Amino acid sequence: MRLRYKVWLETEGKAFGEGPLKILRKVDELGSLSKTARELNMSYSKAWKLINFLEKNLGFKLLQREAGGSGGGGSYLTAEARALMQKYENFSLEADQALQNLFHKYFG
Amino acid sequence: MRLRYKVWLETEGKAFGEGPLKILRKVDELGSLSKTARELNMSYSKAWKLINFLEKNLGFKLLQREAGGSGGGGSYLTAEARALMQKYENFSLEADQALQNLFHKYFG
Repeated sequence: MRLRYKVWLETEGKAFGEGPLKILRKVDELGSLSKTARELNMSYSKAWKLINFLEKNLGFKLLQREAGGSGGGGSYLTAEARALMQKYENFSLEADQALQNLFHKYFG
Repeated sequence: MRLRYKVWLETEGKAFGEGPLKILRKVDELGSLSKTARELNMSYSKAWKLINFLEKNLGFKLLQREAGGSGGGGSYLTAEARALMQKYENFSLEADQALQNLFHKYFG
């Protein structure tokens, strides 16, 4: 028997979780939400809608758009996005450890 | 911001979680899976299929059927079902406390 779980944060609606974390990591790597969307098999408009929805729920910006130029512009993470990702990663690691320990205590 | 999570146990497929716990508690209260199914707005056959599926994954019986008689028979929990419910309830309580503590540590 094994443990499965899903954790996420909400305000009015979903605010943050594994999916958004994965998208933001990819934007940080690729410097572009359109490239990120392509790599994750999402439409660009769906990716922007999700980011806007999260930003509204969180109350701060996650991405800044860089204006066009020769490279066609791109997106980069805000300081608030980086801080949230770091907190969420630490929270996730400790949550996983705590849940695994309890699982072994009761079902190991 | 608030924490949301969903925890469940798996073997080959889903083995136990909040839904099955709720059904078993109701069977214990009503002494009947058919009454339980009615009260939870499930079909009787769906309820039996779920119980059989869980029993197969868990490797032990959850319910014993009582043969007909004047009352039309009924279902009661096996000792293994009671032990699993108790363990799962304790696990759930401690998991909730641990996750809430971590949530407050990082996002409180």
